Amino acid sequence: MSDVLGPGPKTRVRRLAAKANYERDVIFAVIDEAPLCHVAAIVQGNAMVIPTLHAREGDTIYLHGSPSNAVMKSIVERGEACVSMTLFEGLRLARSGFESSITYRSVVVFGTATLVSDDVEKARVLDLFVDAVLPGRASEVRAMNDAERRLTMVVAVAIDEASAKLSSGPTDDPDEDLDLPVWSGMVPARIHYGTPIPDTNGAMAAGTIPVPASVRRLLDGQ
Amino acid sequence: MSDVLGPGPKTRVRRLAAKANYERDVIFAVIDEAPLCHVAAIVQGNAMVIPTLHAREGDTIYLHGSPSNAVMKSIVERGEACVSMTLFEGLRLARSGFESSITYRSVVVFGTATLVSDDVEKARVLDLFVDAVLPGRASEVRAMNDAERRLTMVVAVAIDEASAKLSSGPTDDPDEDLDLPVWSGMVPARIHYGTPIPDTNGAMAAGTIPVPASVRRLLDGQ
Repeated sequence: MSDVLGPGPKTRVRRLAAKANYERDVIFAVIDEAPLCHVAAIVQGNAMVIPTLHAREGDTIYLHGSPSNAVMKSIVERGEACVSMTLFEGLRLARSGFESSITYRSVVVFGTATLVSDDVEKARVLDLFVDAVLPGRASEVRAMNDAERRLTMVVAVAIDEASAKLSSGPTDDPDEDLDLPVWSGMVPARIHYGTPIPDTNGAMAAGTIPVPASVRRLLDGQ
Repeated sequence: MSDVLGPGPKTRVRRLAAKANYERDVIFAVIDEAPLCHVAAIVQGNAMVIPTLHAREGDTIYLHGSPSNAVMKSIVERGEACVSMTLFEGLRLARSGFESSITYRSVVVFGTATLVSDDVEKARVLDLFVDAVLPGRASEVRAMNDAERRLTMVVAVAIDEASAKLSSGPTDDPDEDLDLPVWSGMVPARIHYGTPIPDTNGAMAAGTIPVPASVRRLLDGQ
């Protein structure tokens, strides 16, 4: 495998090309850290975008949804998908509005979309989604049953091309702005997980089921 | 103004319709809290999605970008845009993988896209972006100049239809799962802003320019 996923005809970054990156490792890190993605499709002749969960395995991004989901149906019918993941990482406050922005890492992926119809493969991929939301969780929950699997459409998007755009500090103020009496700098942002809120139904109501290892690792790791 | 922005032909939520909401206040809250959005367009016959910043004023969402940006050019040429904002608010861990997901608030907006070409209006709207990233910041920075304004394309998206999808706790486990010995509950997540990192160039190097009111309010408010 090559170490880069672009640039190709669809993914060459023109604006702020200095922020562009096509390295597989950089792109995969953004995909894997993002808790969700946005998927575009052509629906009734118009472009449409929806948020959804994703899981990555190798050069494939998996998406899932209801079999009636118009975006999922469209990407399977056309055999193509465009997916974007964006990590908001803080504020990048320059001395001018023009140079001010956020810090972020984002990717845009173009891929070949195919329906995952094999039951065994589908069951395997559905576990990937559970672990993508919270690593290790799939082994803690009740296994999926046939009815649940039938209610879910799974789509594999084989990455054809991808680009990342990375914006971090410091600010890019032009020289003539540097001595302005305006505060300039970064305010870092990250996702913070708070105290788990246990369900109060069924066996959980007794308070005897401990917080699982998956959640403890998430909280200990932050 | 009516209190709802949908459902319309493009926005009726079919899957998990109980999570759907079309109220203007609910939709505007998601738009305003989201630090960024994802915009879809048809580019060279394919659906494409990119992340970008946005600002809302009344029933209009403003987008901006380089005049060479393919997505921005497409939505102006077609006169239509689809924009999505999603707030990741935590993990929603059920007793099965099927019922497990994240908690979130998301919106999908369909609107009529027009170029903002008037210089005075463009300058005014560009300040809205600065304040959308950090309220109060526009008044703290050096004013935009003509060259900067010319380098930026501003697009107004008048909201025609919009829907929100809201997912919060508790989990939706079916009755037969309630007594499984599996921990179930929510892990709340939010954006946490850390200690500001001042730029070390120009006048900032002297350490005499205090952290501005906009940043102090952001940090005090969390």
